Amino acid sequence: MPRTVAAHRQAVVELLAGAATTKTTHRVPLLDALGQALAVDLYAPLSLPPFANSQMDGFAVRSQDLADGGARLRVAAPVPAGVAPAALASGFAAPIMTGAMIPEGADAVVPIEKATPNSFPHPTATDAVVDLPAVLPGTYVRTSGSDIVKGDLALAAGTLLGPAQLGLLAALGLSTVEVPEAFRVLLVTTGDEVVEPGNELTPGKIFDSNGTLLEASMRQAGLNVIRTGISDDDPSSLLKVLHHHTKEADQSVDVIVTTGGVSKGAYEVVRQAMAGQPVDFLPVAMQPGGPQGLGTFNGVPFLGFPGNPVSCLVSFEMFLRPALSRVLGTPAPRAVRTAWLAEPLTSPDGKHQVRRGTVASDGVLRMEGGAGSHLVHALARANALVQIPGDVTELAAGAEVEVWML
Amino acid sequence: MPRTVAAHRQAVVELLAGAATTKTTHRVPLLDALGQALAVDLYAPLSLPPFANSQMDGFAVRSQDLADGGARLRVAAPVPAGVAPAALASGFAAPIMTGAMIPEGADAVVPIEKATPNSFPHPTATDAVVDLPAVLPGTYVRTSGSDIVKGDLALAAGTLLGPAQLGLLAALGLSTVEVPEAFRVLLVTTGDEVVEPGNELTPGKIFDSNGTLLEASMRQAGLNVIRTGISDDDPSSLLKVLHHHTKEADQSVDVIVTTGGVSKGAYEVVRQAMAGQPVDFLPVAMQPGGPQGLGTFNGVPFLGFPGNPVSCLVSFEMFLRPALSRVLGTPAPRAVRTAWLAEPLTSPDGKHQVRRGTVASDGVLRMEGGAGSHLVHALARANALVQIPGDVTELAAGAEVEVWML
Repeated sequence: MPRTVAAHRQAVVELLAGAATTKTTHRVPLLDALGQALAVDLYAPLSLPPFANSQMDGFAVRSQDLADGGARLRVAAPVPAGVAPAALASGFAAPIMTGAMIPEGADAVVPIEKATPNSFPHPTATDAVVDLPAVLPGTYVRTSGSDIVKGDLALAAGTLLGPAQLGLLAALGLSTVEVPEAFRVLLVTTGDEVVEPGNELTPGKIFDSNGTLLEASMRQAGLNVIRTGISDDDPSSLLKVLHHHTKEADQSVDVIVTTGGVSKGAYEVVRQAMAGQPVDFLPVAMQPGGPQGLGTFNGVPFLGFPGNPVSCLVSFEMFLRPALSRVLGTPAPRAVRTAWLAEPLTSPDGKHQVRRGTVASDGVLRMEGGAGSHLVHALARANALVQIPGDVTELAAGAEVEVWML
Repeated sequence: MPRTVAAHRQAVVELLAGAATTKTTHRVPLLDALGQALAVDLYAPLSLPPFANSQMDGFAVRSQDLADGGARLRVAAPVPAGVAPAALASGFAAPIMTGAMIPEGADAVVPIEKATPNSFPHPTATDAVVDLPAVLPGTYVRTSGSDIVKGDLALAAGTLLGPAQLGLLAALGLSTVEVPEAFRVLLVTTGDEVVEPGNELTPGKIFDSNGTLLEASMRQAGLNVIRTGISDDDPSSLLKVLHHHTKEADQSVDVIVTTGGVSKGAYEVVRQAMAGQPVDFLPVAMQPGGPQGLGTFNGVPFLGFPGNPVSCLVSFEMFLRPALSRVLGTPAPRAVRTAWLAEPLTSPDGKHQVRRGTVASDGVLRMEGGAGSHLVHALARANALVQIPGDVTELAAGAEVEVWML
């Protein structure tokens, strides 16, 4: 029985979880943490806002002074942003700027547009007065702690640190943040038929796209990628590379990913190289990307992806990327949404099919290319992976499907 | 009349378009182009697949030989991937591996599972035979050019280069790609009340979150960000910084972004510094982020964002990011989708409101925090910007709204 997609994903999670627990964390400047996960729960070292402040340019007042339908008040010294103002005496209104601290005693702000006159007197004027309407307590006041209270959880461990999250840390006065050290992945593409781009292509050969496609995906997922060039179909060449990156502690990687050489043909270099290591080669009930290798090589977690580029991308997106999200907190899981088929489709019975498609903003989904795992031009046009469960063999136009946005 | 959101965005597009046309392009290794836009239309230098190849491990055959319901064929020399095989004579079947070149004369592949015996003879055996069933021409053959034909448009200028697009270029044999030089942006946060994170906070002051939030957003958008630290409310300090980065050609930036100092209060440093420059300060019918500055300083495009962190993020996402997408091709426009309100909401008449919310995979949308532009903790929980048009004042629970996924 082929393994289900969910069971294989869980196996990858378990494989990586062990490696993840041995990783240390380190403290980096905020911007260096962009796209990484927070390593620890982070509690607010101060409240936001740190003090009650004005939401408008206007007059800070004691609302009680205006309770009788408004009143004429004497104008106090203005309160710019950035200073601690004097307390506001009864009968006075203090010109106040947006973001400036509400003076002690004041409990509301009347916007300048509602004042008569509707402009601020000269800052040095000492005898100015202003007519203001009645105002409810709290009006246009941002109270201290209305966004977050000192001591509350600001961000949970594992939170992906994007612009808004880093902005929050900065607002809390933090200039550095604790993140896990990046996972180091050894990426080896294999095959006698595969040629490095930029070289000459002789008959029967193809250019290696897996290396570029996977390295780019892995970099976007925050991995530290070590490439070794293309390994040919001689197992001893591959073994030499794998031993080099697993035997010496200071060279050692956290996970090994190979492409190709995992199916049942006559020249399966990855299968041959893994002989004697605790590695399973098994069918997963998925198309493309059915043949998968999983285990450890010299104790280092190993994943063997199939050799076609679409299979590689699907293997990465269906197994490694979600496992990294689960185990490390990054990258963020793919956005999952519902879409509706523009055209009918068929899918093999008993296999979870992962098709490529383009979802429009109204949710209508068009397929890009057929099911073939070699269709890399079609893949390059797609913005989504289309998930067709194993027990679905036919879907009509308009049918609802789950898609993962790329 | 305040300017509409669409009109202001168009003004930003026009402002940047001039700067973009003066940028040169350069050729970089594929992985260095990750997240950038392709500078030129790119045509396929070869077909993909470059040659007809097998989709399965099996036997390459002349389908005509099996037309009578199948036949016993002599086994030819095996065809591994990566070699140019000899032509297939009539009456023979060639063991062939997935991805290997279909021999001249062969027009179909019978999978090994359908052969009798269902395993390959030893490669050196000379007298082996195999029983194969009938097969339609073309079965399990990936024809040359079935993904893309040599000379066809592979990727259009402006295409965002992600893993799949770079993988396609690699498959086409390309090791480098032409991308525009990155835009250089000068980012200046302003305000006497603003303190750099990591320092002591005295009463009335707040930490600068705008700098971190915008620098992170700009880096993700592919901009080359130059930070200057916080400029105080003395226009001469700000002018010194702006002149330094615009007067000398080798120092010059492509766009200037400031935060704060653009509204109608008494201490508006950016407005003061821009006196004598062709810059407009205008209200946009949007909340938050209504007050905006736009023009040029010493001929360099200038955008003045308001001072609250949420206003800064909304200004970036509503104006600068889409304008960059339109003018440079990167970053990709935000994914736009439809969502359904979990709770009712109200919105001010005549203003396009941009709220923050979290969209679940089923499309149900919950608001994060209120409308206040200081709510950066609420912002850090959101995954979407919620677009409430200016003529909408009330929406019921379940109402459909447009969201931009962050």
